[in-house]
Amino acid sequence: MINFSLMGAGRIGKMHAKIISAHPNTNLKYVFDINSKFVNEVAKSTKCSKATSPEEAINSKNIDAVLIASATPTHTKFITMAAKAGKAIFCEKPIDLDIKKVNKCLDKIKNTKVPIQIGFNRRFDSSHAKTQQARLKKDIGELEMIVITSRDPEPPGMDYLKAAGGFFRDTTIHDFDLSRFILGDDPIVEISAFGDNLFDANAKIANDFDTAMFILRSKAGVLIHINNSRRAVYGYDQRVEIFGSKGMMISGNQTPTSVRKYTDTHTSSKEPIYNFFIERYEQAYKDQLNEFIHSVKSNKKSKVTFEDGRNALILANAAYESHNNKKVVSIDFS
Amino acid sequence: MINFSLMGAGRIGKMHAKIISAHPNTNLKYVFDINSKFVNEVAKSTKCSKATSPEEAINSKNIDAVLIASATPTHTKFITMAAKAGKAIFCEKPIDLDIKKVNKCLDKIKNTKVPIQIGFNRRFDSSHAKTQQARLKKDIGELEMIVITSRDPEPPGMDYLKAAGGFFRDTTIHDFDLSRFILGDDPIVEISAFGDNLFDANAKIANDFDTAMFILRSKAGVLIHINNSRRAVYGYDQRVEIFGSKGMMISGNQTPTSVRKYTDTHTSSKEPIYNFFIERYEQAYKDQLNEFIHSVKSNKKSKVTFEDGRNALILANAAYESHNNKKVVSIDFS
Amino acid sequence: MINFSLMGAGRIGKMHAKIISAHPNTNLKYVFDINSKFVNEVAKSTKCSKATSPEEAINSKNIDAVLIASATPTHTKFITMAAKAGKAIFCEKPIDLDIKKVNKCLDKIKNTKVPIQIGFNRRFDSSHAKTQQARLKKDIGELEMIVITSRDPEPPGMDYLKAAGGFFRDTTIHDFDLSRFILGDDPIVEISAFGDNLFDANAKIANDFDTAMFILRSKAGVLIHINNSRRAVYGYDQRVEIFGSKGMMISGNQTPTSVRKYTDTHTSSKEPIYNFFIERYEQAYKDQLNEFIHSVKSNKKSKVTFEDGRNALILANAAYESHNNKKVVSIDFS
Amino acid sequence: MINFSLMGAGRIGKMHAKIISAHPNTNLKYVFDINSKFVNEVAKSTKCSKATSPEEAINSKNIDAVLIASATPTHTKFITMAAKAGKAIFCEKPIDLDIKKVNKCLDKIKNTKVPIQIGFNRRFDSSHAKTQQARLKKDIGELEMIVITSRDPEPPGMDYLKAAGGFFRDTTIHDFDLSRFILGDDPIVEISAFGDNLFDANAKIANDFDTAMFILRSKAGVLIHINNSRRAVYGYDQRVEIFGSKGMMISGNQTPTSVRKYTDTHTSSKEPIYNFFIERYEQAYKDQLNEFIHSVKSNKKSKVTFEDGRNALILANAAYESHNNKKVVSIDFS
Repeated sequence: MINFSLMGAGRIGKMHAKIISAHPNTNLKYVFDINSKFVNEVAKSTKCSKATSPEEAINSKNIDAVLIASATPTHTKFITMAAKAGKAIFCEKPIDLDIKKVNKCLDKIKNTKVPIQIGFNRRFDSSHAKTQQARLKKDIGELEMIVITSRDPEPPGMDYLKAAGGFFRDTTIHDFDLSRFILGDDPIVEISAFGDNLFDANAKIANDFDTAMFILRSKAGVLIHINNSRRAVYGYDQRVEIFGSKGMMISGNQTPTSVRKYTDTHTSSKEPIYNFFIERYEQAYKDQLNEFIHSVKSNKKSKVTFEDGRNALILANAAYESHNNKKVVSIDFS
Repeated sequence: MINFSLMGAGRIGKMHAKIISAHPNTNLKYVFDINSKFVNEVAKSTKCSKATSPEEAINSKNIDAVLIASATPTHTKFITMAAKAGKAIFCEKPIDLDIKKVNKCLDKIKNTKVPIQIGFNRRFDSSHAKTQQARLKKDIGELEMIVITSRDPEPPGMDYLKAAGGFFRDTTIHDFDLSRFILGDDPIVEISAFGDNLFDANAKIANDFDTAMFILRSKAGVLIHINNSRRAVYGYDQRVEIFGSKGMMISGNQTPTSVRKYTDTHTSSKEPIYNFFIERYEQAYKDQLNEFIHSVKSNKKSKVTFEDGRNALILANAAYESHNNKKVVSIDFS
Repeated sequence: MINFSLMGAGRIGKMHAKIISAHPNTNLKYVFDINSKFVNEVAKSTKCSKATSPEEAINSKNIDAVLIASATPTHTKFITMAAKAGKAIFCEKPIDLDIKKVNKCLDKIKNTKVPIQIGFNRRFDSSHAKTQQARLKKDIGELEMIVITSRDPEPPGMDYLKAAGGFFRDTTIHDFDLSRFILGDDPIVEISAFGDNLFDANAKIANDFDTAMFILRSKAGVLIHINNSRRAVYGYDQRVEIFGSKGMMISGNQTPTSVRKYTDTHTSSKEPIYNFFIERYEQAYKDQLNEFIHSVKSNKKSKVTFEDGRNALILANAAYESHNNKKVVSIDFS
Repeated sequence: MINFSLMGAGRIGKMHAKIISAHPNTNLKYVFDINSKFVNEVAKSTKCSKATSPEEAINSKNIDAVLIASATPTHTKFITMAAKAGKAIFCEKPIDLDIKKVNKCLDKIKNTKVPIQIGFNRRFDSSHAKTQQARLKKDIGELEMIVITSRDPEPPGMDYLKAAGGFFRDTTIHDFDLSRFILGDDPIVEISAFGDNLFDANAKIANDFDTAMFILRSKAGVLIHINNSRRAVYGYDQRVEIFGSKGMMISGNQTPTSVRKYTDTHTSSKEPIYNFFIERYEQAYKDQLNEFIHSVKSNKKSKVTFEDGRNALILANAAYESHNNKKVVSIDFS
């Protein structure tokens, strides 16, 4: 049994609280948040204790692991505290919006040997994961293209936008990581990025994008296309296509049921696709916890490392440079 | 070049006139119909001559073949005339509604050797035909089940119903023939039929059905299900499923384009399926003419014979007997 | 918390043991089976007690409910014992193979007021259930046809066949119940059944079928088609189609992922469909337990009653009569 | 009736010869090619005359129109000759590989008023055309993204590659034009291009690409992605997706039949998609001829103008500049 403290009890924190509580091999012991309403809600629903300070939550002898789902600027602080206390760490993406803070954090923790995993949940989606397995097994021969479509159902509010660190660091970071996941040991070397503000007034005020397209190139020459939007009225659009010398594989959208309806206005109308990430990636969120448990128990490095978090951020930063300078940017992961 | 006379210039006759005119190897020479408006329309659009009597059309030295698309009760008379005149015959289904008239006609023509083909157009649909080829090649192993869904977009009017000879003889006759086509040399031996009047007021007045289901059994034990309706609001529903020891094959509905649309109310709405038989089976109608041309030129028996027309009618008659007596009826094709 | 005794610890019993143990509102207290290996396996995996007799399991003061998943001939005995002991009852289908035993059992328990639910799991499948909801809400207008395709992946062994009570009572009984579920308050009045032995040598020895087709008619005139096979090489084929005055709804097959693969031999090959009922109806099995819990806690009659179990058996018996006498059989549920 | 001379009788010329001959409103009068074998083949199959010089073919009083399907470097010469002779002109893409030659040609013909149409056949595909109509009618609201997938089944040979003018000018030019077609009056202003040589040894020798990705931006901010490959083992992959404020529309791949097969290794394997452009765009080739006929008869400008041909070439040239300099290139259509 692995005992957790949860840092941050907002939307995503609450989801993690629920998953940890329901899992037969994990317990939620403490929750901490600066918002006491959130703390009370989680404490009530999971019967865990309320920590009055980050130190109480993180340093408690009763816990083995810390799940960090607090505001992004607090991530590196909590990671460092937990590493010093010898606790296993699960941290939501992004590690931080500032690569310097990420690098400093890495310096501080690199000599500790605590297990650490970053929350790139999409790697654990069984359909997307099939594309990575297909690349490994060369099911479609030599990989030549990846095409990722990733569109949110609707724009977030102004509060979210202000803290999110920009569209590329907040949203595309998932697709950068998914590209790296599928590519495996073939690193990304170049990127071209196009951002756009086409419809979201809040994004305009925040000087942010709501629409974007990217091309990336790997060392082996694989070309990757990503397209993103903050709004898809038909639902959360999450598709991955890989193409190679022996064929193509598509991980398509999913619907809660297998029902189709045929009427005088439509032939073959599918059930709506899932609305957003908590529904669409429900199982993936559970399976990433299993990976973390496995990593902690077996003392093996997690499949999603601190470096993965850092590298995705480096790609997001390069994307901004490409957009701003209207040129292809070479990637330097060092 | 094969020169045709066309008997009957209504909806289906006009369609045949157009196909014969456009075909590089056939000419339409004469048209006959008791409705002079229809005759004028066809004569004008195809530049063929107007025959003033069936005899003029059928016995003309200038023609090689007669296409019979007139009212059903006239079919056997025109077949007999054409056979005596030594003309090749293409006759729309059904041969007649009365099996006695069909038998007498067969007696009269059996010693002539004119080519004759019945208009079971669905055999020539390239998708449905794949199921028959699959049975022959044992692509799905030994055939065990056939499931045919055949639903018209909307009920015909009262005039049509009065002359049609009943739902089973008018509509299901196509599905009986398609079943026989797929089964090949394995004859149908039993039938159970359920007719229903659920929605069409005209059908009620005409003491006819608008909805029906059937089970047939072949000598080898293959079970066949057919379901029919006079009304499918989403379009002309034409599906064939075959199932066997090594798998299943489905010949599904078709849409004019490959477009799908995704909106806030629907995910993956296909283009409408074809509205009715002239659109859905357009190519099949052309291909059955090619089969007829081949039969005439090669002097080989057509793939759709007078006997096929007769056997489908025998099945329709047995279906009525089954419905009326609420029992399984054994089939006697002799 | 509802405490259970489990009667029968074979394949299906083990599945129920797992679901009861994992559910936050239910406990497994006792397991009984005449096979001590099965008992040990369940006791070990769930940490429940081993009962040495049915009486010990059923009459224990520590339990609230009995889940009966033992051999079919023992069902009515255990139902009666549990009813006398005032325990809530969940019984796997069929109640019994002999309608007389079912009727006697009903006589004995009808004055007790214990909650009782029969294990027709497919009612709880969210896709199939949409068709029932669509009928209620008239989403496709007035219901006119139901077409159920239900094919197992492969034939069971001889041992299973001997005890199963025949193809119609063992397998089609699910489809009879599903038809009744969709029809709601519109009772089935007629049936025509065709059984066949086409491929399974064991079924031949057991004088049983491996292939079957049915037509049923409801009082309101709805026509229902069911087709069954003991073997579908492409997987567990479970489809429901409803058709009515305003359209059609299809609850199609499901695949574990949304992956499609395109190669030089295939375009658009889906992931394999689920292999069999434990995978395909996993969530439905959980949701039927939720319905049972709801029924027990709210003291409301379950949505799947003893009468539902009895009526499905009456339909199976009528199907045998129809097959044997080659006629349409009228249904008498009294 | 419009009488044609055909310049060039290779693969694509032969296809045009067949379409012109079969069309009720067009005749093929002359064919010219430097390859006398090709000339003989076309003359024999269509019964047209063999021209011994371009002048004989183009200046003949018996003809109204010239269809130019000869080698690309001859296009502008034949266009100029035909324009001087007052003949209507249909010219295959590209007009030329050299923008200077295209500009000079434009100078020479701009004061003649002969109808001229460029062979961008994909605009006439009824499925792709639906996306353009959807943009016009705002069926998916305001257009925000276009995603075009266009992959050939297999690489051409070395002879073809040498004359083709490079992957972007030969292949992507179709996708550039299709993007402009969908965008309508919203011009493309920027492009980023990534070329790659991943598998084709001939392309390597010819210093050409076999794989490519592009992002384009329109003046209104629409982002367009194109991906191309010289080889897709599953067939000619031609998909267009448009995305906007009210939804998404996808024009998907097409198969010759609507057959699906389910076996023990695959569930739902579709019929193969069309192999290459002559099959896939058969109807589009016919419909572009209808547009040309309409343009000639009505004396209205064709929907696919000389400027469209020139603009697509300007985009291809900008794509090379972007690839070579690793930067976003601004488009200047002046």
